[in-house]
Amino acid sequence: MPPKIIAVIGAGTANEPILKIAEEVGRLIARRNALLICGGLKGVMEAAAKGAKTEGGLTIGILPQKNKNEANRYIDIPIATGFGEGRNVIIARTADALISVGGEYGTLSEIAFALKMGKPVIGIRTWDIKGIIKAENAEEAVQKAFEFLS
Amino acid sequence: MPPKIIAVIGAGTANEPILKIAEEVGRLIARRNALLICGGLKGVMEAAAKGAKTEGGLTIGILPQKNKNEANRYIDIPIATGFGEGRNVIIARTADALISVGGEYGTLSEIAFALKMGKPVIGIRTWDIKGIIKAENAEEAVQKAFEFLS
Amino acid sequence: MPPKIIAVIGAGTANEPILKIAEEVGRLIARRNALLICGGLKGVMEAAAKGAKTEGGLTIGILPQKNKNEANRYIDIPIATGFGEGRNVIIARTADALISVGGEYGTLSEIAFALKMGKPVIGIRTWDIKGIIKAENAEEAVQKAFEFLS
Amino acid sequence: MPPKIIAVIGAGTANEPILKIAEEVGRLIARRNALLICGGLKGVMEAAAKGAKTEGGLTIGILPQKNKNEANRYIDIPIATGFGEGRNVIIARTADALISVGGEYGTLSEIAFALKMGKPVIGIRTWDIKGIIKAENAEEAVQKAFEFLS
Repeated sequence: MPPKIIAVIGAGTANEPILKIAEEVGRLIARRNALLICGGLKGVMEAAAKGAKTEGGLTIGILPQKNKNEANRYIDIPIATGFGEGRNVIIARTADALISVGGEYGTLSEIAFALKMGKPVIGIRTWDIKGIIKAENAEEAVQKAFEFLS
Repeated sequence: MPPKIIAVIGAGTANEPILKIAEEVGRLIARRNALLICGGLKGVMEAAAKGAKTEGGLTIGILPQKNKNEANRYIDIPIATGFGEGRNVIIARTADALISVGGEYGTLSEIAFALKMGKPVIGIRTWDIKGIIKAENAEEAVQKAFEFLS
Repeated sequence: MPPKIIAVIGAGTANEPILKIAEEVGRLIARRNALLICGGLKGVMEAAAKGAKTEGGLTIGILPQKNKNEANRYIDIPIATGFGEGRNVIIARTADALISVGGEYGTLSEIAFALKMGKPVIGIRTWDIKGIIKAENAEEAVQKAFEFLS
Repeated sequence: MPPKIIAVIGAGTANEPILKIAEEVGRLIARRNALLICGGLKGVMEAAAKGAKTEGGLTIGILPQKNKNEANRYIDIPIATGFGEGRNVIIARTADALISVGGEYGTLSEIAFALKMGKPVIGIRTWDIKGIIKAENAEEAVQKAFEFLS
């Protein structure tokens, strides 16, 4: 059976509490032996990937740019799309579940795609959209995400 | 100066009041000599295109499918992308302003992209997202959209 | 019945003889009341669109960029994709037939997509790929393209 | 330094000699500790991924479909794009070098994109396009690909 892939979505710039949550989410995903997928850039994406790497996880970054060197340093597998925001669809399609930590409009587009596709979306301090499963912290979010995968 | 392009976004199935608003929005866009762009399918997209055609407007449909014959009958220029939901980005990019009439998750993704790109989004009975300019009816929506273009 | 859409594909920079052929191809497409679709940029794309406009045709440009202002001045309907070279697929998908005039690697990708999709590809001084129908000049190319559409 | 990513491109159905070469190419890529990227489907893509797995390599499949379950069984990391043939651009963008084994029109589009991007393309029994570096067998192809990466 192929490993589960969990997306962590959020903004490219975020404050310290949000980044700490994202990093913890990344750690917990790796500890459960799932792959982490994200947008590959800074902010929440980088924090989550960093967290996963501290636990020896594998991280995938789906980049908007044409050049894979734009990925943050915690990305093991940078996928250079050159599709700009169009890459957001790919993150939603590839993930088995998504965890949204904070987030701006780009994150909202990923939430919308994932809900349209019927994927579970767990939200921590994120957009208030019907269909999102709320969580208070990293542990609860990852716990809920994995409940949907079993 | 090239003509302005206004997007009408909304769900592929909608109730009668929503469809009537969409058709009226399409009519008013054409009357102001702007091009109408939409997702090219049924529901709000078809109603808006139908409205534009009754006023002799030109309609563009950006289709998720690979085959342009999937466009509704009121589309003059069907663009077959084969990109699935990824085509939503193209609608937001190409429009000078967007008018959202009702709408489900797909529409939400278009709203998110447009707001991220800094485009004006006018909403009638649609998602309640910060940054959307609310309108009560078709006339007010089109009026507000064009205020942003001048 | 919707109008036929003919793509003219070729490089963004080209020599004078190639540009003259592209312009003539554009003229002949418009004279037969078909829409012209192209990549929206300079060189062969601009020459073909210019030709179509001299005959009152309608021109569509599928742009790699995020901003539709990057289209050449002869494009009536600029579609801003932001998908970079990924937009080449859209041109092949949307066209009923393609006419390749000269061309570099980008053009080759469009030829490949079109042939894979089973679309007729007419070539003037272009890549030598099995499946391309050769033509000596603009008139012959447009003649052959329309034979496939009837 | 991030690991190198080598693409193996080729048709979804191929004869036994071509499949054997593809499998050997996959094996040699993994033996040199590079990642293998491919289109994730059958034929040459599956044979190359199978070869890489026999050597403990890591395999990435960039799928045209919306569902990652469409990947062949040797793909470790299936990326579901939903972009149809548009995914070919992503393979070319993400690879440091490409090895083409046989191949039909889809493969030709990948060759064209890669050459346009200035990436090295090694070809075994494939399209005869200027810019391709020819190789007689798997070993020579992989050897030449890695020469470009150092």
